[in-house]
Amino acid sequence: MGLVVQKYGGSSVADAEGIKRVAKRVVEAKKNGHQVVVVVSAMGDTTDELMDLAAEVSPVASGREMDMLLTAGERISMALLAMAITSLGHEAQSFTGSQAGVITDAVHNKARIIDVTPGRIKSSVDQGNIAIVAGFQGVSQDSKDITTLGRGGSDTTAVALAAALDAEVCEIYTDVDGVFTADPRVVKKARKIDWISFEDMLELASSGSKVLLHRCVEYARRYNIPIHVRSSFSGKPGTWVGSRQQEGEAVEQAIISGVAHDTSEAKITVVGVPDKPGEAAKIFRAIADATINIDMVVQNVSAASTGLTDISFTLPKTEGRKAIEALEKRRSQIGFDALRYDDQVAKISLVGAGMKTNPGVTATFFEALSHSGVNIELISTSEIRISVVTREDDADSAVRAVHTAFGLDSESDEAVVYGGTGR
Amino acid sequence: MGLVVQKYGGSSVADAEGIKRVAKRVVEAKKNGHQVVVVVSAMGDTTDELMDLAAEVSPVASGREMDMLLTAGERISMALLAMAITSLGHEAQSFTGSQAGVITDAVHNKARIIDVTPGRIKSSVDQGNIAIVAGFQGVSQDSKDITTLGRGGSDTTAVALAAALDAEVCEIYTDVDGVFTADPRVVKKARKIDWISFEDMLELASSGSKVLLHRCVEYARRYNIPIHVRSSFSGKPGTWVGSRQQEGEAVEQAIISGVAHDTSEAKITVVGVPDKPGEAAKIFRAIADATINIDMVVQNVSAASTGLTDISFTLPKTEGRKAIEALEKRRSQIGFDALRYDDQVAKISLVGAGMKTNPGVTATFFEALSHSGVNIELISTSEIRISVVTREDDADSAVRAVHTAFGLDSESDEAVVYGGTGR
Repeated sequence: MGLVVQKYGGSSVADAEGIKRVAKRVVEAKKNGHQVVVVVSAMGDTTDELMDLAAEVSPVASGREMDMLLTAGERISMALLAMAITSLGHEAQSFTGSQAGVITDAVHNKARIIDVTPGRIKSSVDQGNIAIVAGFQGVSQDSKDITTLGRGGSDTTAVALAAALDAEVCEIYTDVDGVFTADPRVVKKARKIDWISFEDMLELASSGSKVLLHRCVEYARRYNIPIHVRSSFSGKPGTWVGSRQQEGEAVEQAIISGVAHDTSEAKITVVGVPDKPGEAAKIFRAIADATINIDMVVQNVSAASTGLTDISFTLPKTEGRKAIEALEKRRSQIGFDALRYDDQVAKISLVGAGMKTNPGVTATFFEALSHSGVNIELISTSEIRISVVTREDDADSAVRAVHTAFGLDSESDEAVVYGGTGR
Repeated sequence: MGLVVQKYGGSSVADAEGIKRVAKRVVEAKKNGHQVVVVVSAMGDTTDELMDLAAEVSPVASGREMDMLLTAGERISMALLAMAITSLGHEAQSFTGSQAGVITDAVHNKARIIDVTPGRIKSSVDQGNIAIVAGFQGVSQDSKDITTLGRGGSDTTAVALAAALDAEVCEIYTDVDGVFTADPRVVKKARKIDWISFEDMLELASSGSKVLLHRCVEYARRYNIPIHVRSSFSGKPGTWVGSRQQEGEAVEQAIISGVAHDTSEAKITVVGVPDKPGEAAKIFRAIADATINIDMVVQNVSAASTGLTDISFTLPKTEGRKAIEALEKRRSQIGFDALRYDDQVAKISLVGAGMKTNPGVTATFFEALSHSGVNIELISTSEIRISVVTREDDADSAVRAVHTAFGLDSESDEAVVYGGTGR
């Protein structure tokens, strides 16, 4: 039995009862013979409450001080969890990100981990303790200031520690049973996925699935750390995320992992762009200079009569105004006729390995949308993903139609497999 | 203009408004040309709330984890204060006890400071920043675990930093205007003391005055750091606590500093103890073995007829039961007739320099008590203090009588001075 890293999110430790339930589960793993390292987030609403307080005292807060403030949250939850474990008769010690050796760059509020030196954690578990580590936080290499890792930071802490400690598995406990073939709130018949490759999980994460963030999956893939996403409220196994090679999967087969949707994006169309080299570059340089991240980019073929083309792209709704302003400012330099902004859109994505070499997948996907009367506005594909942009109002029926078309509904015994037999 | 250390307690930073008010005051000191280091406690009830949470998850908490938990409190207040200062246009950086170089022993919950290495604080203020330091906390020298300093810890942090940084003064901001000649809730005519020696302040602190704790005054005296106790709600000067030598005070004069009272103690009388060498030692060894701190000890002369004597001592009420049990357990070994326990007592103390060589002081003190009908149960004196134990119900009238007798009431222009002229 090796070392296991378990990560519990804020909803799992929202109150004293939650902390006691988590403590029991942690002790179970220890009793099963594992060395256990637990990464914990701040309790429930703590982070929001602290941010409210900050807003009350100051309209603008320095990143350094905001990080100092927010890291109090995990300090509270980890100490309480250690106490709860101790009262079950097991030894536990809590460690801040800094004490756990989570070394980051100095970009406050969204620091990147650059090294993990878990000497104190290792010796704590070697002495028989359960080690509790504050998620989401680290210490900057040069200034020794406290940093936070930004969104999904606690999951990333867990995976990074699992890698540095050579853990058997990184278990991410959450309030759902695992990763589903579609959002269960939209598709009643969505099924829990038992196993998914890092690559498919990355595509699902960037297509709107909220269970795991892209960043933590990418870290796990790089260090080849299996992730087990599961519920902290039940004992059921959840979803394993792992390396395709390890699982011996035949990559020639198209295995559909799931359907994701995302209604947080807006679509901007730049109308009447001269179809000549350098135009797209000017547009996306303007966007990049405004530090806006974009998602899909689609350029239609130009109309032969005018020599003009349209370029569309999607981006977070929250960045819409900024992007429009950035483009308007360089209008004469770029040379376009008009900008169209539309935030009533949804992105529907089908994710699965090997779909590019299996043309039937794309056809089935479009047929399903067509049969349910969903109009497609943009299309973009990758090796293992097809995404379309539709009206936001059509999102739910689009997801359901595609989910059914690919046999993902839970009545069917097995997922549809193209080009080979199933796993 | 040199460096000033300011300390603000939990009631001064109880909410966002309080934090903003403190920020303004800090910035004022900075504008006046001082380098400023601020020590801050946890906001209002934070510590109590965290302790409640701990009690909910675990009946017994390890000291290490309780310290980890409680130190989240100052982390929140110091980061918020730094933000509030920044929004007033000044640069501020917050530091944990560990970052500020507050090195302690490893006794969790009541660690002692063994060294202060304020390198980061010094370079922060040298760069023009206002440095905010978490009070009450440190890091243990050997294990590098987070520790807390126990009661009065934040004041002690402030004085210790002031000493290590060679500050001009350590300002302790609180919710009262300074140190008074008696508790203003009991004596309406109590006066604020403008200046008091370290020695008198130490006696007042151990006699029931709550404004400054013994521990922090002792630290200040050892390093000769003047303390200025003042209100965070007004701009008025408060009470300066300093070295008698520096102030050029003639120690031959009896200067009455004030009257303190304490109703938190109980009295135990060990009745019928054989009056022979070693008896008192057995009693107080039993008490010490139970790790109980005692205060006054009085032994009456033995009755010639029996050769037996009574030994009385006072101790915190909270320790009463433990002390009685400890003595009963060794009853046969010590050899006494009975134990009398009384927690309806009060200790009244008169504090002032040179009173031992001015017999009039003691006489006036006892006369005042007698005229107001207060019975004296125990008497104990030191170089600069006379204490008596009375009925608890008599405490207020005793304090008022003594306060008036020594001319401390605010109508009179000057305190009564024995053996010389006033300062």
